[in-house]
Parts: sequence; C-alpha cells; structure tokens
Amino acid sequence: TNLGLPVPPGFTITTEVCRKYYENNKYPEDLQAQIDAHLSMLEKKMGKRLGDLENPLLVSVRSGAPQSMPGMMDTVLNLGLNDVTVKSLANQTQNERFAYDCYRRFMQMFGNVVIGLEHGTFEAILSEVKGRYGVTLDTDMSVKALKDVVAEYKKIFLKETGETFQQEPHKQLSMSIDAVFKSWNNRRAITYRKLSNIPDDIGTAVNVQTMVYGNMGEDSGTGVAFTRDPATGGNELYGEYLMNAQGEDVVAGIRTPRHVRELKKDLPDIYENLVQVCETLEKHYRDVQDLEFTIEKGIFYILQTRTGKRTIQAAVKIAVDLAEEGLITQEEAILRVNPSDLDRLLHPTIDPEAKVEVLATGIAASPGAASGMVVFDADEAEAKGNEGLKVVLVRPETTPEDIHGLAAAQGVLTSTGGMTCHAAIVARAMGKPCVAGCKALQIDLRAKSFEIEGRIIKEGDIITIDGTLGNIILGEAPTIDPEMSEEFDRLLKWADDVRTLGVMANADTPENARMAREYGAEGIGLCRTERMFNDVDRLPIVQEMILADTDEAKRDALNRLMPMQKKDFKEILKVMEGLPVIIRLLDPPLHEFLPRFEDILTDVTTRRLKGEKSKELEEKEGVLRKVRLLSEANPMLGFRACRLGIVNPEIYEMQVRAILETIVELTREGYDIKPKIMIPGVGNVSELKFINANVRRVAKEIEKESGIILNYELGTMIELPRACVTADEIAKHAEFFSFGTNDLTQTTFGWSRDDAEGKFVPQYIEEGVISVNPFAQIDVKGVGALMQMCVDLGRSVNKDLEIGICGEHGGNPESIRFCYQAGLDYVSCSPFRVPIARLAAAQETLKDKNG
Amino acid sequence: TNLGLPVPPGFTITTEVCRKYYENNKYPEDLQAQIDAHLSMLEKKMGKRLGDLENPLLVSVRSGAPQSMPGMMDTVLNLGLNDVTVKSLANQTQNERFAYDCYRRFMQMFGNVVIGLEHGTFEAILSEVKGRYGVTLDTDMSVKALKDVVAEYKKIFLKETGETFQQEPHKQLSMSIDAVFKSWNNRRAITYRKLSNIPDDIGTAVNVQTMVYGNMGEDSGTGVAFTRDPATGGNELYGEYLMNAQGEDVVAGIRTPRHVRELKKDLPDIYENLVQVCETLEKHYRDVQDLEFTIEKGIFYILQTRTGKRTIQAAVKIAVDLAEEGLITQEEAILRVNPSDLDRLLHPTIDPEAKVEVLATGIAASPGAASGMVVFDADEAEAKGNEGLKVVLVRPETTPEDIHGLAAAQGVLTSTGGMTCHAAIVARAMGKPCVAGCKALQIDLRAKSFEIEGRIIKEGDIITIDGTLGNIILGEAPTIDPEMSEEFDRLLKWADDVRTLGVMANADTPENARMAREYGAEGIGLCRTERMFNDVDRLPIVQEMILADTDEAKRDALNRLMPMQKKDFKEILKVMEGLPVIIRLLDPPLHEFLPRFEDILTDVTTRRLKGEKSKELEEKEGVLRKVRLLSEANPMLGFRACRLGIVNPEIYEMQVRAILETIVELTREGYDIKPKIMIPGVGNVSELKFINANVRRVAKEIEKESGIILNYELGTMIELPRACVTADEIAKHAEFFSFGTNDLTQTTFGWSRDDAEGKFVPQYIEEGVISVNPFAQIDVKGVGALMQMCVDLGRSVNKDLEIGICGEHGGNPESIRFCYQAGLDYVSCSPFRVPIARLAAAQETLKDKNG
Repeated sequence: TNLGLPVPPGFTITTEVCRKYYENNKYPEDLQAQIDAHLSMLEKKMGKRLGDLENPLLVSVRSGAPQSMPGMMDTVLNLGLNDVTVKSLANQTQNERFAYDCYRRFMQMFGNVVIGLEHGTFEAILSEVKGRYGVTLDTDMSVKALKDVVAEYKKIFLKETGETFQQEPHKQLSMSIDAVFKSWNNRRAITYRKLSNIPDDIGTAVNVQTMVYGNMGEDSGTGVAFTRDPATGGNELYGEYLMNAQGEDVVAGIRTPRHVRELKKDLPDIYENLVQVCETLEKHYRDVQDLEFTIEKGIFYILQTRTGKRTIQAAVKIAVDLAEEGLITQEEAILRVNPSDLDRLLHPTIDPEAKVEVLATGIAASPGAASGMVVFDADEAEAKGNEGLKVVLVRPETTPEDIHGLAAAQGVLTSTGGMTCHAAIVARAMGKPCVAGCKALQIDLRAKSFEIEGRIIKEGDIITIDGTLGNIILGEAPTIDPEMSEEFDRLLKWADDVRTLGVMANADTPENARMAREYGAEGIGLCRTERMFNDVDRLPIVQEMILADTDEAKRDALNRLMPMQKKDFKEILKVMEGLPVIIRLLDPPLHEFLPRFEDILTDVTTRRLKGEKSKELEEKEGVLRKVRLLSEANPMLGFRACRLGIVNPEIYEMQVRAILETIVELTREGYDIKPKIMIPGVGNVSELKFINANVRRVAKEIEKESGIILNYELGTMIELPRACVTADEIAKHAEFFSFGTNDLTQTTFGWSRDDAEGKFVPQYIEEGVISVNPFAQIDVKGVGALMQMCVDLGRSVNKDLEIGICGEHGGNPESIRFCYQAGLDYVSCSPFRVPIARLAAAQETLKDKNG
Repeated sequence: TNLGLPVPPGFTITTEVCRKYYENNKYPEDLQAQIDAHLSMLEKKMGKRLGDLENPLLVSVRSGAPQSMPGMMDTVLNLGLNDVTVKSLANQTQNERFAYDCYRRFMQMFGNVVIGLEHGTFEAILSEVKGRYGVTLDTDMSVKALKDVVAEYKKIFLKETGETFQQEPHKQLSMSIDAVFKSWNNRRAITYRKLSNIPDDIGTAVNVQTMVYGNMGEDSGTGVAFTRDPATGGNELYGEYLMNAQGEDVVAGIRTPRHVRELKKDLPDIYENLVQVCETLEKHYRDVQDLEFTIEKGIFYILQTRTGKRTIQAAVKIAVDLAEEGLITQEEAILRVNPSDLDRLLHPTIDPEAKVEVLATGIAASPGAASGMVVFDADEAEAKGNEGLKVVLVRPETTPEDIHGLAAAQGVLTSTGGMTCHAAIVARAMGKPCVAGCKALQIDLRAKSFEIEGRIIKEGDIITIDGTLGNIILGEAPTIDPEMSEEFDRLLKWADDVRTLGVMANADTPENARMAREYGAEGIGLCRTERMFNDVDRLPIVQEMILADTDEAKRDALNRLMPMQKKDFKEILKVMEGLPVIIRLLDPPLHEFLPRFEDILTDVTTRRLKGEKSKELEEKEGVLRKVRLLSEANPMLGFRACRLGIVNPEIYEMQVRAILETIVELTREGYDIKPKIMIPGVGNVSELKFINANVRRVAKEIEKESGIILNYELGTMIELPRACVTADEIAKHAEFFSFGTNDLTQTTFGWSRDDAEGKFVPQYIEEGVISVNPFAQIDVKGVGALMQMCVDLGRSVNKDLEIGICGEHGGNPESIRFCYQAGLDYVSCSPFRVPIARLAAAQETLKDKNG
C-alpha cells in the first residue's frame, strides 16, 4: 500500500522470514530464491538489472522493524555499486563526483553495518583525505579526493577482513539482508526490546528500494520529519533536512541541518508535498508518523514511514488530540498510552538534555530526582532542613530512628538494602527519591565522607540522586518538574468511565491520603499503622513498651500511645470522608523499633573496653539483651503480624480501641466514614477467629459505653501460601481479602526480597533463568496460581467477598492485567501510581472487550 | 458383658452423657433422671436402697475412661454412708470398726476428689489421731480412734467449705458423678491427652458399683494385676495386693503390698480365680488387661478391667507374643504398637526410676541422654575427648567451626536456636542428644561457667542432658541403653512384608549409612554434601574458596576440595551397594561456612580499640567485610541452594564431577551403585533446566574421557510453594521429586522454624490456635494440600516420577500417614527413625486395607 505516495519502487522480505531465520538458527533455504524472485520483478519494472555493468540498478536496504530500535542495522544506500558500475553511474548522471560520492558512502555503510568495521575508521580516512586536499565539507571534495577515499577504504577492507571489498552486487544484497536479520538479535536490540516490552519473536522485515538521490546537487536533499512534535505532542510538522546530502548526513553533525519550517520558505512546493504526505499518512495510520524523505533534482520522494516515537508527555497529548480530532476513538486514545511510562510524568526527573557525571548506580528504589548537600545522620539532616537547606541523607541503611531525617531530606541514598529496605519503603511512601543498595558506596561515618569509585565526597558536598534510574550524580543536576496536563487529566477521566477494576491508594498519613484523593484514588487500600509507631514523638514510648519489665509498664506505654493513634486515624478518616479506608494492624516484628543489633553491640563493647561504669551503660546493656532476645534468624518469617497480635493481645486491643473510639467521635461529628480493619499475616483461619473475637469484644464494650452502633468491616491480608490454599476456611470469617503480594512472592518463591534483588535476581535475569523480577511484576504462573486459587476458594463460600491487592504490584500495569483477569475488585498502590493504575485498569477492560 | 465373671452389680453412665456435659457447658438436664432410673433398677436387684437408714445400699463411683489418665478423678468408695447408715453398716456386719473405717475412707475420698480438699490435710489428721492412740498402722486403729477421725474430718469440711459434710446419699452420688465428668477437663488430663494423642471429645463414662469390701478383716483384701508384665511384656501375672485393705492402700506406701505370686502360696484358690479371670479377660479383649480385684471374706470379686498400659519394650514383646500365641494376627500385632513410642527404644534414656534434679528445660532437639563434664569450646571438647573423658559441649550456639567439638562431645546444649539450629541438625545427624534454645541458660564464656535458675555451673562440672524431654539435669543421671530385641526385629520384618511405602534414611557419612542399612533402610533419601564441607580438614579450604579474590584462587580451592568429596561419595556408595543414594548438591548459603558476624565484629572492634596494627587484624577485617557482604536479612530465603549453584556454577560443577568420577571408579571396581543427583531449592523449572544442562555437559565430558556410560538419575527437592504449584513443568525435567517439608512448611506458613518454635508456637498451641507444631507433624490442610497438588501435577506429565519425602517429617508417624495417602513412593528419615517409619508405613497399609 503506497496510498498513491511518491515512493521509489522496491520490495519487502517479510518478518516471517526473520522468524524462520531464528527458528532453526540457520539461514532459511528458500530465502535466496525469494530474493531472486522479488528482485527479478523489480528489475523488470525498472528496466535495469542489479549488477548490470552498463545500466545498473542501485538499491537501498533497510530494516523494516516496527519502530527504530537501537542496535538494529542502519540503512545501506547505493547498493549495487562496484568499480565498474560506479563508472556507469557517472556516465548516466554525467556526474562523476556524485557517482564516487555514492560509492564511498556505500563502502562506508556496507563496511560498518554489514561487515562490522568501526565507523570511526572510515571517518578518520575521510578526514585525512579532506585534510590532504584542504577542504572541510564532504560536499567540497573533488572527484580525485573521492577516488582517493575509495582507494583507502579498499585497503581497510583488505587489512581488516583479509578479503577485498565485495564487488558482486547480488552478494552485496544478500549479505545486507542477512545483516538486518542478524542485527535483530544483537545485544543492544535485545536489551532495548526487553526494556520496551517488545516480544523477541516478532522479527523484522527487510525493505529493498530502488535508489533516489539527495546528493545530486543543490536541487537535491534529504530529511526526516514527524507529523507532530514528538517532544510536546504539539500539532505541527517537526523535522530537519539537508540539501545535497544523503542518509546519515542529517544527523551526522558536520553540517547543521535546517528545520522543516525553513523548507516552507525555501522550497514551498516541496513543503506542500511533505505536508500532504504527512496528512495522508497520519490519516491512514491514525497515528503520528516518523518519515524519511528525499528530494532528487527537485522531485519529492518519501522513502519510509513508521510510527513516531514520542515522549510520554507527547504520547498523552497526541492520544487526546487525535481522539478529539475524531481520528481515533476515546477508547483507542486510552490504549495508545503505555501506563508504565506515566511514572515519568509524576516525579521530577533529571533533564535528559543535561550533561551530568554519573558516579555510580544503585537500586532505583523510589523514583524521582533530588539534589542537596550530603549529610550522614538524621539529626544533621533535620537541623539543616530546618535552616531551609536541601539535603540528601546518606546512610549504610536507615532505621525507624532516622525517620525525622528522612522527612527533612530531599532524598535518601544507602549503601545496603534493596527495594524493601526501610529507606526504600519510607521514601516511596513519602514520595521522595531513593537510591538504595549502592555497593560502590563506601561510607565512613566517623570521617563524615564517602568514597565512590575512588572519589571522596564529604559532608556538605552537593550530589543529585536519580531514583528513577538509580544514578548518583555529582553536583546539582537540572531537573524537570512533573505536571498533570489538562490532556492527562482528560485521558484519565475517560479511563475512569471505562474501567471496572477499582483503584485505591496505600497511604499512612493525612498528607498522603490527600494526595491519593487528588490523584483519583477511590479509597485507601492499605493504611499501615507501624508508620505511626515510628514517628519521632512515638518511638520512645514504643521502645518503652517493648522494654517494659512489667505488664503494668507495658499497658501504661500503650495507654499513652492510644490517643496518638486516635489522632492519626481521625485525620485520615476525615480526609477520606465517603471513601473506604483499610487500616492494617501492626505488622513488623518488635525488634524493628529498637536500635540495630550491630550498633548497640559496638557501642556497648566500646564502652566496656574503655572501662566505663555508668547508669547509661547499664541501660544500654539492658537494651542489648532485649535486642538479642528479640533478634531473629529470619525476621521476614518471624514473630510478627498477627502472631504478635495473638501472643501480645494488648497491642492490637489498643489499636482496635483507637479505631473504634475514632468511629464513635466522627459519627457523632456527623462524618460519613468507612473504616475497615485488616489483620496481617494470617495463614490459619483460627488466627483470624482469635483476633476477630477480641475485636468484636472490644466493639461491644465501646458500643455499650457510647450507645453508638459501630460501622466497620473486618478482613485479612492474604500474603502467605497457606492462606491461599485454605482461603475457603478463611473467607468464612472475613469480609474482605487484600493480597500482600510482596510477602506472597517472597514465601512462594522462598526468596527474601532484600537478599534476592541485590544478590541473584540480576544474574538470573541475565542468564535468562527468569525474564522479569517477580517483585516488580506478579509471577503469574506461581504466585498468580495461588492468588487465583484463593479467589476461587474464597468466593466459593462467600460470594460477596471483596478482594483486592495492596502489594507494590498493585501499581504495575502487567500485574494489574493479571489482577483484572483473576477477578479482583480493586488494586491499591502508592498515590503516585494511582494514575498509572487507572489507565492500566481501563486498558484491561478494553482489551477484554475487544477480545 | 461380664463374661460370667464375679463382678459386683452396678450400672454405667455412658461417655455420651459426658460429651453432652461439655457440649453446652452445662449439666445435662436428663442426667439426674438417668441416674435415678439406673439406681432404682440396681436397688431392686440388690434389695437395698441408697440412703435407706436400715439397710443401706453402698456403692463405689469411678471413672470409665478408656485408660487410666493422670488428673482424672480417682475412685470414691463406700458412697452412701452418713452418720446414720454407718451405724446400720456396723449392725449388719457386726463390725463397728469396719463400718467406721469405711466411713472415714469415704469422707476422705469424697473430700479430696469431689470437694477438692487437700489429700494431705486428711493424712495429717489421720497421723495425728494415730499418734494420739499410739498406733502406726491404719488397721490398728480402734473404733474410738476412727470415730475421732470422723469427727475431725467433719470439722475440716465445715472449716474449708463453710458447709457440713454432705449427709444425703443421693446428693453424694450426683456430686461424685459430676466430679468424674468435671475431671475430664482438668488441666492435667487435658495435657496428658494432648501428649498421648487421645482426642478431647471422646469423654469418659462413670461406673457405679455396689460395694464389696477388702477391709473386712484378714480374710479380705484388695489388689491390682496385669495379665502380663507391663514393664517387660513377659507372659506372667504381675501385680500387688494387700489383705484387710481398701482402694488406695495398695499404692499408698504405708504398708508394703505383696506381689501376686505370694497369693499363689497364701490363697491358692483365690489365685486360681485370678488366673482364670485374667485368661478370660485377655482372651476376650485380646490384649493385656489391667484389673482391680477385691477379696471379701474369702470371696473373689473383679471390680474393673481396662487395657493395660505398658512400656514400649513390653508393647513390642506382647504384640509379637500374642500373635505367636495365635490370639491376634500378625497384622493386628503390627497395629498394636505405637510407632512414635519406638523412639524411646532407639536411644539411651534416663532411667525413669532415678531421682534426678532437673535444672531447666530447653527444646528437645535430638533425642537420647548424655552425661559429661561441661566444656565451653570445641577445642577443649576435642582435647578432653581425646583424653577419653566424656564431655557435654555448652555454647550459646554452634557453627561449622565447632564441628570437631560436637564430634568429640557426648551431647550438646545451647542457649539459643531451635529445632533447626546448627547444633540440633548436626546432633540429630550424629545421633547425639541435644537440648537447644534453653533460655534459662546464661552462659559466661569468659568465666567459663553458666548460670541456670540461680545456680552456677562451672567448666568440669558434670551434667546430664535429656534430649528426649529437653531436660538439663545436675550430675550424672543413670541411663538405660537401647536395645533392638528379637521380638522388635520380628515385628519390623512382619511390617516390611505388609508395607507398600518405601523407607529410606537421611545419612551423610559412611557410619550413618551403615547404621541406616542396619536399621533396615532401603537406600539413602538424602545425603547432604554440606556436612562434608564442614569437616575440620575441609572448612579452611571452603573458607579460602569463599574469600578468594580471583577466579583462579577460587578454582584452586575447589580443586583441592574435589578429591575429598570423591572420597566421601565413594565410601557412602560402597556401603550402600545395591541401594539408591540420593546426593543433594550444596544447599546452605556460603556465610554459614564463615565465622559468625557478631564474633568477628566483636573481635575486630576490640583489636581496633586496643590500637592493634597487624597482618592478622587486616585479615580479620577482610573476613569481616566478606561476612558483612554475604550476610543476609533472611538467610532462609536467601542466596542459597540452586541459586548459589546457578550464580556460582563452578561449585556445583566440582560436586557433580566428584560424583560422576566416583561412578566411573566404582563401576570399574565392579560395584553395583545407584547414585541420584538432587538439586535443592528449585522453584522454577528453568533453574532445574539450567543445572541439568551443566550436569549433562560434565557427564558427557567424563563419559568421553572414561569410555564408561554413566548411570545416574537427576531430580529435585520440592521445598517451595512455587515448585508445588508448577510441578507439571518441573516434572518434565526431573526423574524424581523429594519433598523438603521443613522448608516447605516454613514458606507455606511464612514461619521461620528457628524463630517460631522459641517464640510463638508454644503459645499458639496453648491458646488452641493450632493443635500441633507443624514442624513436627505435616500440616495436612496447608502444606499437605500443596504436596498433593504437586504429586497430582507431577504425575500428570510424568507417570514414572518417583516421589518421596526427606524432611524431618519423614520419621513422624502422623506425617507418614499423610505421605501414604498422598501417594508418595517412600519416606526418608534419620537412621534412628527408620524402624518407626517401617512400622508406621505398615500400619497405614493395614488401615487402608481394613477400611
């Protein structure tokens, strides 16, 4: 289909052939026959033959990949030239300079992309010859100079390959086609496809086209154009061209290309041609096109078109604009934007144009960019923050005691930990950038400095961290602020009209709750209560409770915590008025609220060796004993969650009382609130029954005291394989289920995320043992199978059971696909990912509808 | 059914009533009516009425529990006596002394077991009155003395209960019946049932019998008898009796009872009666009976019979003897012995007769008893051991570096850790007793002493540890050696003829392998290779490999390890000639082979503070860095098992090469060996495929080098939920599956065994959240469901797939039941538990057959 466009004649070897090529790992036997057949038809049409010495057909060979792909073979132009046909070309065009320019270009492209010789080698020779003749521009080279270049290039071929430059045009053609197919599986192309979620097995086509020439003189030229601005999405032609040029010249940077708007002035007819072609193509393909054109002696040709790559900003605007222009439907617009890319719209990012010095790369633990002075402890961070200074907190790892420092810092950088280390979780919750587990970082806390790749960075030095890519950058890198454009908002509203899957947010503070509402969350799917325990004014009381020797002291500490928890719940429930809020009872093991074992051990050992005898040391020894007593071989599988609530019922009782008394107060104040209480870590229905009974007992007491009927739901996290397998028992005692897929993935795989992501997951992906990190995207075969079993068993006994997900996967589009298919009612994710989830959820409904 | 035996008339309130009693937690309404109806029939038959002032019926009330049970209500005799009827009894029997003796006995029993007054209070009064009258024996008390006792007893009733002693016989009766029912749920009875696996809901019956009296003078008496010796199982009457006595006198210890063989001489007719009754009862019940008899004025009565409790030694002998006598079949004999009890036969045990001082109790981590001098480090243990001294190694915990100390010690005691701590695993494998995680133990390594419940034990002091019960005992406690009796052997051979489930053993050394064969194992189901890495001559090389900076140094260390591994494999395979041996490739994370983080940190900190500057410190700092680098948040879910083998393929390659080269050598030497290679920790089929490919490549190389076709199988552990859920994929690439139920339980529950058993499992059981520890007995609903899914999925694609279990559950009879039902091919367990498994497996086949 050329739509009546001025396309030079040619033929295509289809992607099917490429797939065959890789199926058996060998050159398909019939490929040559196919090429021959196509070629012979083309030759007939053109009245010329490839390799004909008098009247040679010259062609270009280029990849027909669905979009431009790094690593894929670049175009080979002027194919068919050799020492004899170059002369025929000179004769025919009466332009020997042109012919030799084509020849040297062909040798260079063929040498580089087909044979694999260094591009730089050819460039060096070209420069050298230009120097020899005293010219700077390619276009100024004489015939003699060009012939010198050809001669030098021939030497290079012989030297580097041991063979002379390929003179046989049919051989040139099949080698070039072969190179396109081969480049499909080169490392860069594979990596790119992995990153862009392009399947490996779709393959590439190869396009062979008769040559038209942009280098035939000042009435010729070549250019590239986008039908709309690929950076902003603005509805205006965008592109560049060069006169008397061919192929790569436009992007090579030796001559400065001109913007296509100049073409309007310089060659208005040609410009009109281009506009026409763009309109036709956009209408035909119903999307922005990225096209290559050539002007040969004043005649306009269009060589290639494909879907234009664009920034995510542009993608949103273009989709909405195309829908409003009536070119596509609203539903198509929804499907046009990749939800994963939206993440970039929602955090400040490092300006991609900026030149920055990346010192090292860690785990991209919380997206966004932040710059500030390096500080090494939380108090210092807070102090500097109070002075209005921007700081980046740098620690081996963080603990709940550092929370005020995290709050004061722009971002956090750690040398240990992974996606679920304390710093990462808190940073994500606060919406701050975090780079975690940067092994290259050697922190010397005493010297207040760190070493990274041989460079020493001191306290007060400025760095930038890029939590989107995991980079650590020296100095302050320029950033671009996020914006929710009017089009973005419109697209999400369309998505809301379409989707059937609910979208909630994980939020633990009134600020986060407000943000969640703003981003369109329909409720809070996970409100963790441990964050409240970690607050700087609470932690000492929590520690008091843990270290208490008597039940009385324990209860006393809990009694002081309760009004604080009530205040938290009250604020969040008010912000979320009218929407459900799922509050999870305490989940982490108690030792997480105490100092780190290593720190307290080192402290006590040092003091002892110094002969210290003080009350303080005694106290510290007491803490050390408790830390040791509470320490666990595998905290992830330890004394936590509902186990803690069953063995120490007074903790959950305090929390439940705080929630229920808050309901009483807000009900009296006339608020419409929808609290739900969620029990973590249930693996056995009896655990849930035990806690439910306590909750109901407390509720009865409060109802009696207050005379108010308490309106709340009781449900459980599903985060253990045993809970999935026995979901029919559990569902009889729960009003809702919420999948905690982080923990469910850890237990189903038997992989601790903190250990796996730093140690073997990267190598597993490299070796192809797994294709994606199961902590980033739900493992459908394993974890998904257990989830599906849970949904089916749960609903079989309780058809009204509400089922959602509140693990981090809830904001991952591929995982949302699975959740939709598995029949979940909603997903809950970080507020920043709510827009992503809204769009992804709508796409699933549409895909389902479209079959 | 009284089989024509001389049983006093009576009636029974059935267990059904007891169940009703507890169903609604209240006295069943129709109980009184039932009692009245039964009683009135009995009164008619006897021509006497309860509470009749002239001619009173007197009865006994006793529990009809299926076997005697600690905490259950003892018998109440002489019920129906009061201040009036005692006189009628005196009149009727013309024996006032007898009547008042009965009355005071009744008051005492009623007071104690029905009202709950202290037994000691009554004893004190009795002594006091005897003192007052200058007599020592009850039988010497005069009527006057007995009347004094009754008067004093009455005071006690009034004082302690605020009410006078119950005079109304019908009330006495219903209160006594009530007390029997109540005692069913007292704490001791519940605990006993839990320990003996007796269901809580079977309930007890109550037997009411007309009185016969053993205290009517020197021609009367009472006794208990077993139809065979309950300690040895010997086929001879066993029991004791006392003349002129009633009820508890036989066991009260004031008068020394006589052995029943004396009865043969003293009262040959009565003895003949007893023998007759015993024969009848044994024949009828086809099992050993434990019976109570009374002689009233020369007339023999049998009061009660139930199945006789016996030691496990006796149980085995009796079962085999009864079968050989033709009383029961061989199959019944197999079903008569509780496999769990066999454990006691297979380890030395503390003599139950011995008086020992238990200092504290820890986790019973490896069964058996051991005594020795306390030592606090492994080197000292080895040194003392070499001197021929017996030592018990006491450590906070052990590491692979302590292995020589463990080898030299009689047993090991630790203050931390649980059933899967290093000490526990090694001790079980070595068949040595271990008490782990004894929290009461406060070890001071510097002072070389420990404190336990306020007592200081120093190095060199003798203690005994009882790994069967978890006790720590001061001094050397007398022990009983295990023995495999001839009957035991016969029983197991019968079991082998019956069972369809295979029984293999877990063994890592030639000694263990030999023991496994001796105990009847049909192969080795789990040969761990990490034990070999831990050996004292290997550990330094293993550490070298881990700490190696270059690939070369790493390979060099591995090359030195290989011949050692080969030697290990060769010996084990030779011992197991003709039988399969499943060798598991390295499983634990590498940091387990390095010093403990805490130790090396303390060491380095101390040296640094002292200002030390030495090569040694530098080395230690290097080790600290590596330990820190390798340290994991959750080692159980960390960088271990096949993950290690995939990321560091050279380790598995060394092990595989060692196995395959051993096959070559043994094949050449003419041995018939059946090695199987097992990959641990597989959760994804691609892991297995990756390693299989490497194994096959090495195998091809060795086949080429040697010209010998290697005969081996390749399979995988199933120890992760993901492996169960995707077993259909995995089974296509495995010749066998072996369930690692320890890890599967940990991941399915999300419970780390080390943390759970010390921290919340005991309280969970206490609170009734779970009924048994899932690490001791397979959790059928959760873990079992995953296993069943795995078996079904696996066999659906590979019908020849061999499936077994090698987790510790493999030796637990309840778990063996599940394995049989789930369709497994074999169980594999510690050599010591092989006999248990053989018997348990046979029982399952029989139960299945019998429906």
